[in-house]
Amino acid sequence: MTCHVVTGGAGFIGVNLARALSQIGDQVVVLDDLRLGRREFLAGLTNVKLHEVDVADSAALTAMLRDVPDGRVEVWHLCANSDIQKGAADPSVDLHATFLTTFAVLEVMRARGWGVLHFASTSAVYGDHGMAAVSEATHTLPISNYGAMKLASEAIIRAACETFLTQALLFRFPNVVGLPATHGAILDFTRRLIADPSQLAVLGNGRQQKAYLHVAEMIEAMLFVRAHAVGTCEVYNLGPSDAGIRVADIAGMVRDRVAPTASIKCADEPRGWVGDVPRFRYDVSRLAAFGWTPKLSSAAAVARAVDEIAQQELAPYPATPNA
Amino acid sequence: MTCHVVTGGAGFIGVNLARALSQIGDQVVVLDDLRLGRREFLAGLTNVKLHEVDVADSAALTAMLRDVPDGRVEVWHLCANSDIQKGAADPSVDLHATFLTTFAVLEVMRARGWGVLHFASTSAVYGDHGMAAVSEATHTLPISNYGAMKLASEAIIRAACETFLTQALLFRFPNVVGLPATHGAILDFTRRLIADPSQLAVLGNGRQQKAYLHVAEMIEAMLFVRAHAVGTCEVYNLGPSDAGIRVADIAGMVRDRVAPTASIKCADEPRGWVGDVPRFRYDVSRLAAFGWTPKLSSAAAVARAVDEIAQQELAPYPATPNA
Repeated sequence: MTCHVVTGGAGFIGVNLARALSQIGDQVVVLDDLRLGRREFLAGLTNVKLHEVDVADSAALTAMLRDVPDGRVEVWHLCANSDIQKGAADPSVDLHATFLTTFAVLEVMRARGWGVLHFASTSAVYGDHGMAAVSEATHTLPISNYGAMKLASEAIIRAACETFLTQALLFRFPNVVGLPATHGAILDFTRRLIADPSQLAVLGNGRQQKAYLHVAEMIEAMLFVRAHAVGTCEVYNLGPSDAGIRVADIAGMVRDRVAPTASIKCADEPRGWVGDVPRFRYDVSRLAAFGWTPKLSSAAAVARAVDEIAQQELAPYPATPNA
Repeated sequence: MTCHVVTGGAGFIGVNLARALSQIGDQVVVLDDLRLGRREFLAGLTNVKLHEVDVADSAALTAMLRDVPDGRVEVWHLCANSDIQKGAADPSVDLHATFLTTFAVLEVMRARGWGVLHFASTSAVYGDHGMAAVSEATHTLPISNYGAMKLASEAIIRAACETFLTQALLFRFPNVVGLPATHGAILDFTRRLIADPSQLAVLGNGRQQKAYLHVAEMIEAMLFVRAHAVGTCEVYNLGPSDAGIRVADIAGMVRDRVAPTASIKCADEPRGWVGDVPRFRYDVSRLAAFGWTPKLSSAAAVARAVDEIAQQELAPYPATPNA
């Protein structure tokens, strides 16, 4: 039986991954500092063990993982600071939570002789290309600290493939939506409309347009690539092939669901915040050629998530979120 | 008068830069941990002040730079671990000396309100492309920790251009040769042939082929770009346009200069060490279009450096190295 070590496994995407891995009957060890993740997100899952730990602390990590048996181990490194604005204000946040965690994970994997790593990277590594579609071969430098620390992580993982890693899959995530929502525009809009059902202020001019994937489909894509990839170090853009959906349209969908009479007010700036990439289109032809495409468009993924998140916020967190 | 803060300014390239800046009449503050750099390399230079400091220690850095006056300040961030093999054996060396130094330099610049940064990057950010020429737009991931930490540094510098940097010039260095030599193949071959004039063992099969630039020309190129660049964040490959020179040919040139009767023995591996990029060709058309090309070919740059380094090693280090 494979044992999966999932960092950030109590967070939004990690919980969905841990559930999927537990459902195929494997062992799951979750490492999470529980800053954004929550213990109760994992309640009811079988064969899932949670350790609360700062993943950048390689000594603590080594101790926590001492009881993981030898044999087939795969590491899924998902933990990171997902608050891009916080990282822009204080670069040490991304340094610690997004990059030094990767460094520590690699140190432990080297020491334990674990060779298989799956990494949650991001479209933010590409920087700003306007509406030109970015493929895995596209190169510019990221414009946010978050993107910079993810690219830095990709780079040291790639270098580790020259020494001790046997396979690294680098998944470049788009905007991902679904339950349990812990951050992001839909949750933010929902909470603010519940607090004040009369109006909603949107950061940026609302014309920022981005590709969205539902978390259920993203987990499916990652497991598909894991099952079929053969290279030592493979990079995949995960996402829909459409041109995405505008922030103002997302705000409208949340308004219609949560507070139908609210007015929506956009600002003047083209970017929502420093380091925001206002328009972004993904080239996902590599993944499509490999055999996987999402069923939901960006708009459909957002529509589903808007409804899910409204239910989450209008009721307590479900003990076991639905996939 | 401009004050230039040069990290790694007591090392091979830094000393040449500090001299050039002092010769145009500017103030130079050198920050160096003196692990590879040497105090005596800076002897005799006017308006150059050396602080011995771990550049990754932002508190120490802040204290050291307290007396740098307000006004026009430019930072040249050159310090790094230049021992690629050491970084492959212990990734924390590159983390600390190559990446966390960049992070600390940016922290100090942000706090002081200094907006102009020149960064010593490397062709190693490109990974392995065989003999295809790599341009500034080429993208793969680096295959050494050294290249990874340099790419990571580029990425956080690029992100800082969104917040507080007013201009960052990212110079991607090729192999650079000249005086004062502190590391590198020519110095290694020279020292080993002085120790044993009968034979020289070469790491790798000797067919590794790379582009070389003489340090005197590289400083000229950096000052040329500095004088003419207008963008906020500009990336330049620095190097010759030729296909480079083979390691076995370099070994032969050193042998002819230092120990003409020695036999040269190459190994079987295509790479000299883990993370070595065995064949590398630079696309320097961006720099050429901008108006600068080197006068020396790779072979001519190496020939000049072989003679200079032989003189250095057969005599004590000169108090003031020649440009």
